[in-house]
Amino acid sequence: MAVYTEVSDAELEAFLAEYDIGQADSFKGVAEGVENSNYLLTTTQGQYFLTLYEKRVNPKDLPFFLGLMDHLAARGINCPRPIHGRDGNALRTLAGKPAAITTFLHGLWPRRVLLRHCGPVGEALAALHLAGRDFVPKRPNALSVSGWRPLFDAARHHIDDGLARELQGELDVLEKSWPKGLPAGVIHADLFNDNVLFLNEKLSGLIDFYFACNDAFAYDVAICLNAWCFEADKSFNTTKARALLQSYEKGRMLSSEEREVMPLLARGAALRFLLTRLYDWAHTPADALVKRKDPQEYLDKLRFHRSARSITDYGL
Amino acid sequence: MAVYTEVSDAELEAFLAEYDIGQADSFKGVAEGVENSNYLLTTTQGQYFLTLYEKRVNPKDLPFFLGLMDHLAARGINCPRPIHGRDGNALRTLAGKPAAITTFLHGLWPRRVLLRHCGPVGEALAALHLAGRDFVPKRPNALSVSGWRPLFDAARHHIDDGLARELQGELDVLEKSWPKGLPAGVIHADLFNDNVLFLNEKLSGLIDFYFACNDAFAYDVAICLNAWCFEADKSFNTTKARALLQSYEKGRMLSSEEREVMPLLARGAALRFLLTRLYDWAHTPADALVKRKDPQEYLDKLRFHRSARSITDYGL
Repeated sequence: MAVYTEVSDAELEAFLAEYDIGQADSFKGVAEGVENSNYLLTTTQGQYFLTLYEKRVNPKDLPFFLGLMDHLAARGINCPRPIHGRDGNALRTLAGKPAAITTFLHGLWPRRVLLRHCGPVGEALAALHLAGRDFVPKRPNALSVSGWRPLFDAARHHIDDGLARELQGELDVLEKSWPKGLPAGVIHADLFNDNVLFLNEKLSGLIDFYFACNDAFAYDVAICLNAWCFEADKSFNTTKARALLQSYEKGRMLSSEEREVMPLLARGAALRFLLTRLYDWAHTPADALVKRKDPQEYLDKLRFHRSARSITDYGL
Repeated sequence: MAVYTEVSDAELEAFLAEYDIGQADSFKGVAEGVENSNYLLTTTQGQYFLTLYEKRVNPKDLPFFLGLMDHLAARGINCPRPIHGRDGNALRTLAGKPAAITTFLHGLWPRRVLLRHCGPVGEALAALHLAGRDFVPKRPNALSVSGWRPLFDAARHHIDDGLARELQGELDVLEKSWPKGLPAGVIHADLFNDNVLFLNEKLSGLIDFYFACNDAFAYDVAICLNAWCFEADKSFNTTKARALLQSYEKGRMLSSEEREVMPLLARGAALRFLLTRLYDWAHTPADALVKRKDPQEYLDKLRFHRSARSITDYGL
């Protein structure tokens, strides 16, 4: 929840003059998205989304993200499509920050995940993986297994010894046995419920591609199992997981190796979100505008995955 | 900047079913407005604004505020118009909070006040005062002179002795000489630049009526002198003030008594905003989502008004 950068009247006017989308009719800071400053921009021609990229996004990655959205949208994925200015550029500068305008997607993200959401999410994830296969630019996943120990080191002085030992043990196991050579390509890497829009009970869009990168497709599936299939009481809902996995396989079959390592990938995904939450918890000033998320949730998820033996524990 | 209350999917659907405005097409928390939770709601029929009233708004005052907006809109004031449900009610409950939907106003509030904004603001303020004259419900101004000493008492332990003495002196003077019997009616009482929208260089709307009350019209003018006529370097811009006052008088002439007491009213208005900022500064938890506003700005304004001798110091 954040608007970090204020845009002056003159800056906005000059910025919009670079585009062919009309004049500003309304410009409202949006209280969603924790990484960037987001504005809902209505012009005389329609509704748009304007994003100023704040310091957690590396400006060098922006051509990858914007290019990917262009690429996916052209292949029928309903994601925000960058608006290009008259000079052809989608990425420019506003109020001293890198900034871009995208199309506005209709739909609401489900505040509460229901079974009926999980199938469409699996289907959309497979479609995303297939649509990204011929996207040429590459962006390694900085938050995969090799990125976890530095996060742990930065957070360990803020957590108790028992938890530190447990996470240390996880890291040792995952670093040693993390699978290599799985089918890979562009993954979303953050497909949580607030990044999936639904309209009239149908999935209407995928948003927030600012963690997208190249990594194993099955790892993206494992992230979704963490994001969509746990209940508020911490129990794992295998019916939701089965719906997600079966619908994913309608678009792209999981190989036997991918199925075999799913518990390990899900464990890694849980650790990844646990570590970034611990890191944020320790490093976000208490007066920040960003809402900190409780790390405990992902410790519970991690422990579930550690107890899982095969993909049958995920309903397949 | 705040969304305090999350609305669940089922709650929103049930809420909208009470209205004739179609189904939700998009629902975004807005990062503006420090008092309430505000959502921009797009339905199959258009754009609306949905507000959940948080604890700083007294639910007993809501019929006054909503009734006033209905009243003013019916008299041609471009303000948010409450949408009434099928049962005729504009005020209902959502996620356990009082809530209302209003029309969405087009336009942008000026991030930087220019001379060209001040005339239209004066004109709109006079129109608002005239349009409210036959509004029957009454709401006394809780933040007028009798409300200032309690605010001061609550903040005095958080400010240095010099400032406390200065404010104590102000209170003594203002309580003794605060004018009575000025022409009065419904005033906006918070017409700052973020509550006035402009489109194509024309004033397109007034928003945020949640401080509106019955008080002296000239006091509302004095609030606007504080809100619109100081520069970033703290200097008072008499050209802006003249534009504001002359345009106000196109709609409603100030009486000789109102003109005479304008420096005193402006001093009171500066003290009112200084005190609420001091109070918020002292009582807002450092991790709150609300951006605290610097009280010093209003101390400088207060000192300017203390030195003013007559309305000629305000450009008239």
